[in-house]
Amino acid sequence: MRRALSILVALLPTAAVAAPALTPSEIVDHAPNSAWTDVPEDRLVVMTLGDGGQVVIETAPDFAPVHVANIVSFARAHRWDGGAITRVQDDYVVQWQPRDEKAPLPSRIVAHPPAEYERSRQGLSLQGLAFFDSYAKAVGFADGWPVGSDGGHVWLAHCYGMVGVARDMPPDTGDGQELYVVNAEAPRQLDRNLALVGRVLSGMERLGALPRGTGAQGFYVDKAQDVAIRSVSPAADLPPAQQPHLQLMRTDSPAFAAYLNARANRTDPFYVRPAHGVSLCNVPVPVRTRPSAP
Amino acid sequence: MRRALSILVALLPTAAVAAPALTPSEIVDHAPNSAWTDVPEDRLVVMTLGDGGQVVIETAPDFAPVHVANIVSFARAHRWDGGAITRVQDDYVVQWQPRDEKAPLPSRIVAHPPAEYERSRQGLSLQGLAFFDSYAKAVGFADGWPVGSDGGHVWLAHCYGMVGVARDMPPDTGDGQELYVVNAEAPRQLDRNLALVGRVLSGMERLGALPRGTGAQGFYVDKAQDVAIRSVSPAADLPPAQQPHLQLMRTDSPAFAAYLNARANRTDPFYVRPAHGVSLCNVPVPVRTRPSAP
Repeated sequence: MRRALSILVALLPTAAVAAPALTPSEIVDHAPNSAWTDVPEDRLVVMTLGDGGQVVIETAPDFAPVHVANIVSFARAHRWDGGAITRVQDDYVVQWQPRDEKAPLPSRIVAHPPAEYERSRQGLSLQGLAFFDSYAKAVGFADGWPVGSDGGHVWLAHCYGMVGVARDMPPDTGDGQELYVVNAEAPRQLDRNLALVGRVLSGMERLGALPRGTGAQGFYVDKAQDVAIRSVSPAADLPPAQQPHLQLMRTDSPAFAAYLNARANRTDPFYVRPAHGVSLCNVPVPVRTRPSAP
Repeated sequence: MRRALSILVALLPTAAVAAPALTPSEIVDHAPNSAWTDVPEDRLVVMTLGDGGQVVIETAPDFAPVHVANIVSFARAHRWDGGAITRVQDDYVVQWQPRDEKAPLPSRIVAHPPAEYERSRQGLSLQGLAFFDSYAKAVGFADGWPVGSDGGHVWLAHCYGMVGVARDMPPDTGDGQELYVVNAEAPRQLDRNLALVGRVLSGMERLGALPRGTGAQGFYVDKAQDVAIRSVSPAADLPPAQQPHLQLMRTDSPAFAAYLNARANRTDPFYVRPAHGVSLCNVPVPVRTRPSAP
């Protein structure tokens, strides 16, 4: 993993010596269309809040297939319609749940999914990050997702905006009705302890700004504080005008390599000293709306 | 720095084998009074928002003496009264400014402070963190502050809740009128590039929950969106009933060593697999209100 750095540096335009270096945002803005890939729409789930605000979540079926299948089934069955965000703990997570978690489970739901906390690295396309990590032997991106790895296994990392399944004490793994999203400093101690099932691709700025709960663990103490969820739906079930069309930057593209290098070595004019390093969760994979056909 | 781990482990109670391990919060709750130290009140600055909410900031004069002296002078001169929070960028920073930044400077203000981005390690009491860091050769706590170090120099780290001085392009260093606070994943690439001057000890949950700005870099596009600042004052200038009395956990205490170890190795019943590591910014130094005299 540590050798990746020299490869990344070699991909940088040599013109950087003459012109001011680009910022990470500028690299993203100038990335060619070939650096972007459509997010398959059958992976997207859309949460609409009580005020009409949309939160678009990309699911990760390659990492937590049973949990993700549950979540899609729950969304299709309108399980969260009329539900609420009931917990916002500062510098930790935002959590939501259905109106009635004890209602009979829809068919197809696996009530006790396996502990989908890590998987084999086989079959994944990996790009390593060339810097030390405080939690894992190696970190990087697997099929575009931020991951940790011990060599043989790979697991999703609890970065800002990552979505996971709340659970009770082990061996419970959660059936997917209660979900959480990381709202601040990455709580990587949760890696391999809960099932991460996706990430927020748009609307995170809504969830990040929710009022913090004053109860234990950030739960709202008064039901009147709950943040209403109007609906959660697979994107494909929405009216066409409401369907999101998003693209992620390919983590195997030269543009991403340049972006990653710039995040680790800021040499644009604002900076006086590049860090020569970056943490996994400080390299969010760029997202954009799919450009209209010309 | 890396040897510190065995020392920390040696401090753990051996009873952990018999009873369930404590969570970090439980360790904090059970810490003896000797583990806590009063925050000197002449270090505290209190921001009162338009809705009456209080944000208490501890300044760091040992790291950025000229910038901190400026900030205290500005607060004493009521420079921020009637000012506003004008920028909230999701997953980055919250930033505020006076009503009139161009008004004549109070006497004592150093208009162009030196670049107080790092300092000598001499004279600081250091506790090293025994885990890899993505940004610095070594990290830990210096006089209770989260820091990076290259051996000879020490610098404050951009963790959640850390407060810094916004500036223009170098060689500008900012005079301290525009301040920012980290509101999500630690943007450690800013370490040694701006002057960090303190940290939010209470009220961060208010700043973290502010609506995100929709302009470039998260600035509010409409003045009506600005979040009003009623006043910013040195704590000692407040009426006694409004003065905060806070304590920080001593980072050289056995309780802190146990807390740090528990953050790195969660063995309390909720966890199935401890991380065996923790990042600097995931070890927030515990804060509490000073207990009343018995």
